[in-house]
Amino acid sequence: MNFLEKRIIKDGVIKPGNVLKVDSFLNHQMDIELIEEIAKEFKRRFGNKTVTKVMTIEASGIGIAAFVAKEFGVPMVFAKKSKSINLDGEMYVAEVESFTHKNKNQVVVSKKFLHEGEHILIIDDFLANGCALQGLISIAESAGAIVEGCGIVIEKGFQIGGRAIRNMGYHVESLAIVDSMDDVNGTINFREQEEK
Amino acid sequence: MNFLEKRIIKDGVIKPGNVLKVDSFLNHQMDIELIEEIAKEFKRRFGNKTVTKVMTIEASGIGIAAFVAKEFGVPMVFAKKSKSINLDGEMYVAEVESFTHKNKNQVVVSKKFLHEGEHILIIDDFLANGCALQGLISIAESAGAIVEGCGIVIEKGFQIGGRAIRNMGYHVESLAIVDSMDDVNGTINFREQEEK
Repeated sequence: MNFLEKRIIKDGVIKPGNVLKVDSFLNHQMDIELIEEIAKEFKRRFGNKTVTKVMTIEASGIGIAAFVAKEFGVPMVFAKKSKSINLDGEMYVAEVESFTHKNKNQVVVSKKFLHEGEHILIIDDFLANGCALQGLISIAESAGAIVEGCGIVIEKGFQIGGRAIRNMGYHVESLAIVDSMDDVNGTINFREQEEK
Repeated sequence: MNFLEKRIIKDGVIKPGNVLKVDSFLNHQMDIELIEEIAKEFKRRFGNKTVTKVMTIEASGIGIAAFVAKEFGVPMVFAKKSKSINLDGEMYVAEVESFTHKNKNQVVVSKKFLHEGEHILIIDDFLANGCALQGLISIAESAGAIVEGCGIVIEKGFQIGGRAIRNMGYHVESLAIVDSMDDVNGTINFREQEEK
């Protein structure tokens, strides 16, 4: 098990309905030392790529993406969730369905901050059905930017997102892939990943 | 002028209605080197306080607060905006009105992550009418935590928030205080602050 899998075992809480709560260290309270370790691991895994900008989506991706951007020495941009249809044409837009909240959001990035030919590393805390990630990819490619890879902290391997996006040819690295979990016994199985 | 004021002059955009857009470096795209410099400045200004946790509110406070937490070597917790009334009693709640979006949100922090006697440094990107900051203070004090100070990146000095919260006895440090701005001429006046 890697450092993240160990931490999930130690402090993650499994709830009914395949919900994994990691709010004590990742997406409500944040253990900054862990976030830095996560960022360094993404740098290791994507270090051979050209990355000119890190991109994520509010809210819980922001802290992680900021530290990844620091590792690469590049700016970070986060897509904003927007309810308003009153966008001024200066935004790239994608529609994203939330698994947690069962609603749809428009997510937007200003055209000022994504350009043709930029090399984008997308970072997010969770990958489940893949809607958020597909929205970010769509926004980046609308701008003519190149998606160099997608760095995910925790992937729910039993949901469709990871496979779908890998099948589209994107390089997805998930630091922990949960293949199954059991809220009754509190057990969690991670997919074996080869050390790279 | 300090480093932040210079950057606001250089890259901030003044819009009608006293709107200051800093989305190219602070709250949409983030210049990580600048964020680190901001974090170090907060460490300098609050370095003589006991700080056991940094607290902010999603979304644009998260990246800044994460780097401030790194400076202090403590965890960070961010309050979440919640539309649901269906909270399970395990949350501290405050109601916050948004100046930008003209709506009200409940903001919540899990009771697991705020405790009696903790020493809280609150961080946010903007202070205008003070609603968000008052909500965070209220949440921290509901938990019996001690608010050691409030670190704000940009304060709109012509709005009521900063004065109101200082009058309540809180130690507020704003790295730039805008006393007035003019979208026609593109001029901006910062309040003189003594070097500390």
